[in-house]
Amino acid sequence: MEAFFELKKPDEVFELIDRLEPLGEETIPLEKSLGRVLRRDLEAPEDLPGFLRSTMDGYAVQAKDTFGANESLPALFELAGEVAMGRNDPISVGEGEAVKIPTGGMLPEGADGVVMLEYTTHLDSKTIEISRAISPLENIIQPGDDFKKETVFLKKGHRLRPQDLGVAAGLGFPHVPVFRIPKVAIISTGDEIVPVEEGPLPGQVRDINRYTLGAFCRELGAEPVTMGICRDDFQSLKDMVEEGASLADSVWISGGSSVGTRDLTLKVFETLPGFELLVHGISISPGKPTILGQCGGKTLVGLPGHVASALVVAQVFMSRVIFRLRGENHSWSDSLFEVEAELSQNVESANGREDYLRVLLVRDKERIIARPVFGKSGLISTLVDSDGLVKIDMNTEGLYQGQIVKVMLFRQGGLL
Amino acid sequence: MEAFFELKKPDEVFELIDRLEPLGEETIPLEKSLGRVLRRDLEAPEDLPGFLRSTMDGYAVQAKDTFGANESLPALFELAGEVAMGRNDPISVGEGEAVKIPTGGMLPEGADGVVMLEYTTHLDSKTIEISRAISPLENIIQPGDDFKKETVFLKKGHRLRPQDLGVAAGLGFPHVPVFRIPKVAIISTGDEIVPVEEGPLPGQVRDINRYTLGAFCRELGAEPVTMGICRDDFQSLKDMVEEGASLADSVWISGGSSVGTRDLTLKVFETLPGFELLVHGISISPGKPTILGQCGGKTLVGLPGHVASALVVAQVFMSRVIFRLRGENHSWSDSLFEVEAELSQNVESANGREDYLRVLLVRDKERIIARPVFGKSGLISTLVDSDGLVKIDMNTEGLYQGQIVKVMLFRQGGLL
Repeated sequence: MEAFFELKKPDEVFELIDRLEPLGEETIPLEKSLGRVLRRDLEAPEDLPGFLRSTMDGYAVQAKDTFGANESLPALFELAGEVAMGRNDPISVGEGEAVKIPTGGMLPEGADGVVMLEYTTHLDSKTIEISRAISPLENIIQPGDDFKKETVFLKKGHRLRPQDLGVAAGLGFPHVPVFRIPKVAIISTGDEIVPVEEGPLPGQVRDINRYTLGAFCRELGAEPVTMGICRDDFQSLKDMVEEGASLADSVWISGGSSVGTRDLTLKVFETLPGFELLVHGISISPGKPTILGQCGGKTLVGLPGHVASALVVAQVFMSRVIFRLRGENHSWSDSLFEVEAELSQNVESANGREDYLRVLLVRDKERIIARPVFGKSGLISTLVDSDGLVKIDMNTEGLYQGQIVKVMLFRQGGLL
Repeated sequence: MEAFFELKKPDEVFELIDRLEPLGEETIPLEKSLGRVLRRDLEAPEDLPGFLRSTMDGYAVQAKDTFGANESLPALFELAGEVAMGRNDPISVGEGEAVKIPTGGMLPEGADGVVMLEYTTHLDSKTIEISRAISPLENIIQPGDDFKKETVFLKKGHRLRPQDLGVAAGLGFPHVPVFRIPKVAIISTGDEIVPVEEGPLPGQVRDINRYTLGAFCRELGAEPVTMGICRDDFQSLKDMVEEGASLADSVWISGGSSVGTRDLTLKVFETLPGFELLVHGISISPGKPTILGQCGGKTLVGLPGHVASALVVAQVFMSRVIFRLRGENHSWSDSLFEVEAELSQNVESANGREDYLRVLLVRDKERIIARPVFGKSGLISTLVDSDGLVKIDMNTEGLYQGQIVKVMLFRQGGLL
């Protein structure tokens, strides 16, 4: 047991998280797949587009017939018809002929380019004058220009964006294979906790973590399963953890920042058959008393009791747990969720642990200023007032006024 | 009519969008309010926390009794009981007395500070030795430290994040007043369009915009209402626009990039009683043939036909329409959705219009490189392959290799 009490460094914790097994596969309608992560490579079953398309309103011609044409010496063409959108009429373009074509229209047989409408003049019902030469393939898209048949157009582990849904639609995928969404059972513990609807008596507080952690899961693309409030009692907690593990992929216990409650969480975890303790304490502040373990393929988590500490741990470590379960590719796009800012004042920090400083961002012309938000970790206002976190490395004694720091931004309700 | 054909500059368009009326109010459960925008200021009905709380496991004392205590000269205290979480037991702390208290526990009558457990020693069942002095209020949170009664703790126009739900829960708001979510009716037009489930015949393409624009709306916190595919025909389009306007707050017509179809969109809009045309063409590329108008409080939009152009216009302008309807405060947080990067090559641009260049971001050690993704705007692969857009100002002739540019990031499926 003793060995477990050694605090893990953040990098060690990340490494352990990265060994968690991503969830299984389900097939869902394309329409519902925004933000979901592909479970398999998607391969183009056909060329996209499937035929030669005009990219302009104009006239389809044989490009060679326009060579040499210019404003002072236009070339004459015989009008040989008009392409209707979405139809495959038997029209063809012979030498010296032009066929009217709208943007997106299929190029008629024989044509190899399109002259834009503005370089043409209708001389009479049968004759068109063209005042600019085009080269072959000008103003057209060829079959496969978007994606060629049999190429992988979206990769396993990719998170689907609107344009990705678009190409999947274009290639005929009404359904897509994705990783399951992680379900997270959220348990609030503490004899002092009452539901939000109740007026707390002296000594009681309303259940905050249910809402913060539930919303946090949603922001990251996980589904919270609210288990409710649990008394500080071994059997009640054990029952609720077991129920949570049967309903969800991960169980998060929060609340109970007193030593006794924290010990209770670990005691309950350790009675579960096959439980493997991965982390018991992380060398960070706030967030040190975090517990992470595994049991029967479920990820069990004990979060610090203070709501602000719990959210910092969620932001730094639990986001990685969720992304791992979601099957996301290790993507550098997460590092986009950072902004550089100038620190407004000196900040001290203890050596030997990583500190996470809450900061408010203020724009000052072109500069972004990060103002530290101080306050006890029991206060949620410190998080309400701040925009993100600044990591202070383990081996520094603090940060200096004017120093450029990286701010890990809080997600903005899933919409930033 | 003539005057309407004058292209609007992007800033003029933004100004018109900012005059749209935000939607009305609805009251929803706090649990479902993540990402929603507050319709009213929320005021604290009581102090948070509501009572003096310990922030540590330790002993509640009268601070003055510890003055002078240190390791070589500890002070002795009589143990006068133990605080139980969530209870209001009649315990008090007199002179020379100490009461055991867990983190989060309510400070007993008479005490004004907490000594951390590690500076105390149990001498016998009745006596505690304290080896460190504390000052009054040390290791406690006072009533109202988070938020004082009657202060506004969240403002109208604020988008709710997990920590905001937390403080609303802590202050007893099981429901919150928010702006309605904008509903957007999406119409795909074009005789060549077939549903994704169908195999397109030569000349036909599958309906892509339904998926890209629908997902785009979801990413921004709007609700798409899929109207389906409309033939290029005045009456069909008019019927569908009218139905869309009756079901939704905004109607977006996409597809039909040929001049004829574009004219059709405007013609239909103009037959609606009270229609006011705001924008008919924007001096940008891609995206020039964008139409924006208003009718009976509904925002009517004609998007460019090419899917990639439509998504660029959505990213630049329609996001602002949605945010405006959602009632979001003008917040600088949207500018966080940018990243600075170094351009990998020279890019030319026409004077007199804003160009939006698609770029792929590549991390090269500490630098972020933006690589232009070129391709015809009819190709959706240009968006699939890119991470965001770089604006090239109207009055420049291009950008240079090595130049630091701002990249407007695509939202990552609502999860970045």
